[in-house]
Amino acid sequence: MPPITDAAAHALKIRRMGIDTHQEPVIYMRADCHICRSEGFEAQSRVLVTSRGNTIIGTLNVVTDERLLSHDEAGLSDAAWRLLQAHEGDHAEFSHPEPLESLSHVRAKVFGHRLGDRQMSAIVRDIVAGRYSELHLSAFVTACAGNHLDTAETIALTRAMVEVGERMSWPAAPVVDKHCVGGLPGNRTTLLIVPIVAAYGLTMPKTSSRAITSPAGTADAMETLAPVNLDIRAIRKVVGQEGGCIVWGGAVKLSPADDILIRVERPLEMDSAGQMVASVLSKKLSAGSSHVVIDIPVGSTAKVRTRGAARALSEQLIEVGRALGLNVCVAVTDGSQPVGRGIGPALEARDALAVLRGDQDAPQDLRERSLSLAGEIIELATNVPTGTGYDLANVILSDGRAWRKFQAICAAQGGMREPPRSRHTHTVTATRPGRVTGIDNRRLARIAKLAGAPNDPAAGLDFFAPIGSSIDAGQPLFTIHAESPGELAYAREYLASQKDIVVLGDEA
Amino acid sequence: MPPITDAAAHALKIRRMGIDTHQEPVIYMRADCHICRSEGFEAQSRVLVTSRGNTIIGTLNVVTDERLLSHDEAGLSDAAWRLLQAHEGDHAEFSHPEPLESLSHVRAKVFGHRLGDRQMSAIVRDIVAGRYSELHLSAFVTACAGNHLDTAETIALTRAMVEVGERMSWPAAPVVDKHCVGGLPGNRTTLLIVPIVAAYGLTMPKTSSRAITSPAGTADAMETLAPVNLDIRAIRKVVGQEGGCIVWGGAVKLSPADDILIRVERPLEMDSAGQMVASVLSKKLSAGSSHVVIDIPVGSTAKVRTRGAARALSEQLIEVGRALGLNVCVAVTDGSQPVGRGIGPALEARDALAVLRGDQDAPQDLRERSLSLAGEIIELATNVPTGTGYDLANVILSDGRAWRKFQAICAAQGGMREPPRSRHTHTVTATRPGRVTGIDNRRLARIAKLAGAPNDPAAGLDFFAPIGSSIDAGQPLFTIHAESPGELAYAREYLASQKDIVVLGDEA
Repeated sequence: MPPITDAAAHALKIRRMGIDTHQEPVIYMRADCHICRSEGFEAQSRVLVTSRGNTIIGTLNVVTDERLLSHDEAGLSDAAWRLLQAHEGDHAEFSHPEPLESLSHVRAKVFGHRLGDRQMSAIVRDIVAGRYSELHLSAFVTACAGNHLDTAETIALTRAMVEVGERMSWPAAPVVDKHCVGGLPGNRTTLLIVPIVAAYGLTMPKTSSRAITSPAGTADAMETLAPVNLDIRAIRKVVGQEGGCIVWGGAVKLSPADDILIRVERPLEMDSAGQMVASVLSKKLSAGSSHVVIDIPVGSTAKVRTRGAARALSEQLIEVGRALGLNVCVAVTDGSQPVGRGIGPALEARDALAVLRGDQDAPQDLRERSLSLAGEIIELATNVPTGTGYDLANVILSDGRAWRKFQAICAAQGGMREPPRSRHTHTVTATRPGRVTGIDNRRLARIAKLAGAPNDPAAGLDFFAPIGSSIDAGQPLFTIHAESPGELAYAREYLASQKDIVVLGDEA
Repeated sequence: MPPITDAAAHALKIRRMGIDTHQEPVIYMRADCHICRSEGFEAQSRVLVTSRGNTIIGTLNVVTDERLLSHDEAGLSDAAWRLLQAHEGDHAEFSHPEPLESLSHVRAKVFGHRLGDRQMSAIVRDIVAGRYSELHLSAFVTACAGNHLDTAETIALTRAMVEVGERMSWPAAPVVDKHCVGGLPGNRTTLLIVPIVAAYGLTMPKTSSRAITSPAGTADAMETLAPVNLDIRAIRKVVGQEGGCIVWGGAVKLSPADDILIRVERPLEMDSAGQMVASVLSKKLSAGSSHVVIDIPVGSTAKVRTRGAARALSEQLIEVGRALGLNVCVAVTDGSQPVGRGIGPALEARDALAVLRGDQDAPQDLRERSLSLAGEIIELATNVPTGTGYDLANVILSDGRAWRKFQAICAAQGGMREPPRSRHTHTVTATRPGRVTGIDNRRLARIAKLAGAPNDPAAGLDFFAPIGSSIDAGQPLFTIHAESPGELAYAREYLASQKDIVVLGDEA
């Protein structure tokens, strides 16, 4: 029987539709398009698009207004256009993607089976190839959440995530790194640790994340001081010159699978211990690290709520690290209240600068935490006597070497700048006197986000009432910062519906 | 404090964008839109839209081509336009939706907690209000899949699904119903059972579904014989007059939560026993039924593959039914091959008509299955002696009462018509003699769909080679029917790539 269809019959001219659908590639085709009809495509169908040897899989939206597309055209969303590396005037072919075989592994996991190396690898490869829709990603994240991954599965996931990303290597060993599992607003120690450790002489090529569910990630805070979107070549140059950097990890695709999973975990607000371990360690492995200190703040409103949970997480981090050749040391720290005063990219950067510059009113808690962690790194990666790391770090910070190193790193990354300041503020004061006995980190973080952080770098809040402090009636508890009146109003509206974000007890 | 923003500042003219995004409501706003900027909206933000007192929540796509929208406009996808009940020239206000509190229950479920009535109800209310994005829906479906819902949770889900839908009531008890869990092509017994049972004197207001993944749903088949898009008032009139009806359930929104969940379960290919039970029983309860017979065909290529799985499902159906005041009886039937000869809306309707009219060559298997199930319904809902239901049904079918009742129901629904016939056929014949030992229902269904079913009502196939029959070389196995030569070609192309859809063994 002769061929009934040929490639040309499945080709259309493609054009950029001018619609930003975030990271989900969307394809637009007319309802009366001959390809839609012959292939049986309908709205939400998954469609394989091929042009000049590149392929992507997108979700179909059907155009019902003929003015949007002509007969011989298909449209691509901004993400689809970018991923396909398309050019104006190109043609593309459209067909059904092959069945998503690795989805059967996700289903097996849902039905209680364990995932081995082969299955995990197949899932992660399909995710990175863009074969999973948001629905599929959500199913995978949900299936793994809630501690459903055991240690062997977590090792498999970590290995699979390293396999699909870039991997860096460095001439000088040891290569150190540091990570905080997060959940503690203002805990921006990286901005201090990197210059201290680099000034000490260790190599610390720090790739940081942007905020996922928090008001600021380290990359967001650093970006208010210097460029962070460096490619691998630029990172190599900065680290070669200064011994350290603080850049955004997303730009170098150290863990492209993680970058994709994170965009689903965020709206679901769904974390999984196994995915967290794989996310952290895959990035450290890809960054070429040999020694890593991990900060786990524990508190009732932090990400990790109990010492027991911190212990379980520590064990998994250490065990998975060991299986993959990484020296991991865990520091369990106090997570009962925000660190420093600022919450939000620019406000946190301002606190870190104050510590580096040795300002009189610099937040001491941020200074202490940074010195402890820097000390741990120095002890883990070198043979200095146990207990001396803190003092070594303290000298480097106090004598200005860390501050000079920080400025040099910023300059090497593209030039240092002052963090922006917000245009709209609102200060919340105590309605009665009392002593602060508790703070809800989560709701404080939420207010900072409603005010615009992290997308508006100057937005967030300044917090003035640490646990144990005595407050008079009318004394400021915190100040909300926003870049637009609408966002300030939105944060205030939420605030009005809440109480006891700062718990005041009677004075003893 | 004075209002910081007013409604007008958040209003834009809305217009229909002319894009079909299936059921996901999408909102289009320009990147330079003042509302986007003041509210901090970006692509994929969830946006609350209010117009004339109606509200919906949609996902934002940001328009980067200024020609698509003018400065004072926002666009709505077809689904968003429909849900908002908008009119050309309307204005709408745009704001942040409130935080999705019920998502914490979904997370709790993922972390191993059980969901009570209150939690399930909150989740289902939010789903029906359109507050869950596709991501959230996928997480909920995944969290419940893999038999993760116990009986108490399934009862809670069923109750919650009934609460949010319309509920019908009928003057005459008992009110009977029948459901097939599906997966068996041609199993169109409803077209026979309703007239038999209604002629017997019971009330059977049957709402059927259209095809989801199959070549035909009962509503699709019935629609080739009479109108099925009846609203509740019209249904009430037909049932009041004739004691029964066969209409499309989607038009009356008996289980709007189920309608939403199904569109996520399909691309995930993820069924959950609990969700299936809740889906079936919530619709029966909403339809006002008191007695329901459920047909579970079991076969290696049917939806339920083993007797054990059928037994577990039966127990759950009966127990959940009992808890909610519904008498459920389950018939586990043979699901090894198609029922009747036709697969596709008109071809299945033709088979049912042949049985009703008592035609010489009417498919006996369809007749027998229908009589058994009708007999079960009569025994379940009345006090006739066990074992006599089949005979009672047989008399009503054989003496023409069922046929007259069917014609009366069709007339009451808007007028009976003959099913359409296809214009293009292709017959597949046996290449060698043998005895049929197996049939792949799933691939047969796929061919029928490629030929155009269910959208083209006359498309599908006629199947002539039931298991156990002796076939000569050159004898027809099945005939493909299509309404266009292109679709016939498309089905043949797939067929050419497949083998052993009908398995021929050597003659004994």
